[in-house]
Amino acid sequence: MAEKSALDKYKSSADLIQSLPASAWRSLSPDNTIVMSLPTGEVVIELAPDFAPNHVANIKTLVAEKYFDGTAVIRSQDNYVAQWGDTTDVSDSNPDSKPKSIGSAVEKVEVEFFRNKSDVPFNAIVSRDAYADEVGFTRGLPTSVTSKGAYLSHCYGMVGVSRGMPTDSGNGSGLYAITGHAPRHLDLNVTLVGKVWIGMEHLSSLPRGKGSLGFYTTAEKYVPIEAVEFLKPTRKIEVLKTNTPEFSRFVELRTTRNEDWFIESTGKIELCNVWVPVREI
Amino acid sequence: MAEKSALDKYKSSADLIQSLPASAWRSLSPDNTIVMSLPTGEVVIELAPDFAPNHVANIKTLVAEKYFDGTAVIRSQDNYVAQWGDTTDVSDSNPDSKPKSIGSAVEKVEVEFFRNKSDVPFNAIVSRDAYADEVGFTRGLPTSVTSKGAYLSHCYGMVGVSRGMPTDSGNGSGLYAITGHAPRHLDLNVTLVGKVWIGMEHLSSLPRGKGSLGFYTTAEKYVPIEAVEFLKPTRKIEVLKTNTPEFSRFVELRTTRNEDWFIESTGKIELCNVWVPVREI
Repeated sequence: MAEKSALDKYKSSADLIQSLPASAWRSLSPDNTIVMSLPTGEVVIELAPDFAPNHVANIKTLVAEKYFDGTAVIRSQDNYVAQWGDTTDVSDSNPDSKPKSIGSAVEKVEVEFFRNKSDVPFNAIVSRDAYADEVGFTRGLPTSVTSKGAYLSHCYGMVGVSRGMPTDSGNGSGLYAITGHAPRHLDLNVTLVGKVWIGMEHLSSLPRGKGSLGFYTTAEKYVPIEAVEFLKPTRKIEVLKTNTPEFSRFVELRTTRNEDWFIESTGKIELCNVWVPVREI
Repeated sequence: MAEKSALDKYKSSADLIQSLPASAWRSLSPDNTIVMSLPTGEVVIELAPDFAPNHVANIKTLVAEKYFDGTAVIRSQDNYVAQWGDTTDVSDSNPDSKPKSIGSAVEKVEVEFFRNKSDVPFNAIVSRDAYADEVGFTRGLPTSVTSKGAYLSHCYGMVGVSRGMPTDSGNGSGLYAITGHAPRHLDLNVTLVGKVWIGMEHLSSLPRGKGSLGFYTTAEKYVPIEAVEFLKPTRKIEVLKTNTPEFSRFVELRTTRNEDWFIESTGKIELCNVWVPVREI
């Protein structure tokens, strides 16, 4: 780790990123990262056991038992979410059809939101937030803090668990990713379980569904999921650590823009406008 | 206009919208609204002469002289923008090729940002904003206010003028729309000239460009623009007025969510999370 002052020489985030030591990065772990294969390419999702241990355990069971293989993206609502999972319950008007079995996964998992701020590696950024008292990142994930504790926030690319009316009606067999402006009103209403680090464009550029809430109205529109598997250990994907002086300097450089093109260097930033650098080696 | 208290009976924004009187809506004006025809459908853009009179005048000249017909969407950067205009300057490595003539439009237009808050029909919403002292809407357009004045903000669907390094290098012949999380750091750096009211999905779901900044790298990837024309007077598109008690109640109902599904009704909202209702009759 560098002393923070040694990072002052970098005047743009691009310059900084190119110059960072290996120690500023961390590798995605194969046992905590899943890869969803869509027709156009792969979506790499890191799970968030810090915040949603029960949901993450269930999702790992579903992946291990190949639950998602042969399911589909069933919903694409503009400026909101893409959602995937079983195709039975939303499309099939046949009353005899049954949802796909979730195998040995648990059927009902209660929502999981708060952690004590001191129990997770939360690092605050300087930002006046519309929703929370304090905001920042926890192992790369956008995090809000109020007097009740720390919780994950619905920024672009975050992955959550679809649920119905009961608060334990989500179990991870239906998931969604945020594809538009951060719908922060979903924070503390749906359990977030991870983040897409690579391949968001395969979800965000899908044709929008014509049905209510952007659901596709016919099975022909579904986007097939060939498989969801754990990350292969041979793939080396690194993300910038977010509890380091390097990341703090990165956020500073994204806050006050020194690049010549800028007329107004802003000096302000909002949580979901901070992207976290990622690279595949 | 209703008394605000009479609107208290509505408990969800959906209920409210269904019940609003005709006086709560305004029609898009054919001489201030342009329609871009893409292969998948039409994009309806209302212009913002309140804030950018010189750019809007130029764009109207370009549309009247059919400048955009035969141009293309040349850039689609994930979680950021789709950009359209002349295909010559970005794709053609032939040094003899010249940009498409802009006809009688002005070549250089200086950036246009601030208006006195009292000179525009600005209505504030209750929101603690990361970037501005006060935020709200001006004739449906998201607006920020600081001690320097009122200016438009880069929320989803806003349309701006591409520019190079000089502050007068944009003239409206190159335009972009925000397709991701609001890049508010572009506020006061690029002139905003309007908003997409209908058809954002035709821009937001385009395949992402593989080049730097999401530019398409070959002409085959360009998304052709058949035409950009003024709105036909026979089309009746209405948007909710944003300086009324009805809109204030709408924002309240989007801020504190009373729908049964919500666990946490939030009680907070952020500028770019307020959508403005639109309907075609």
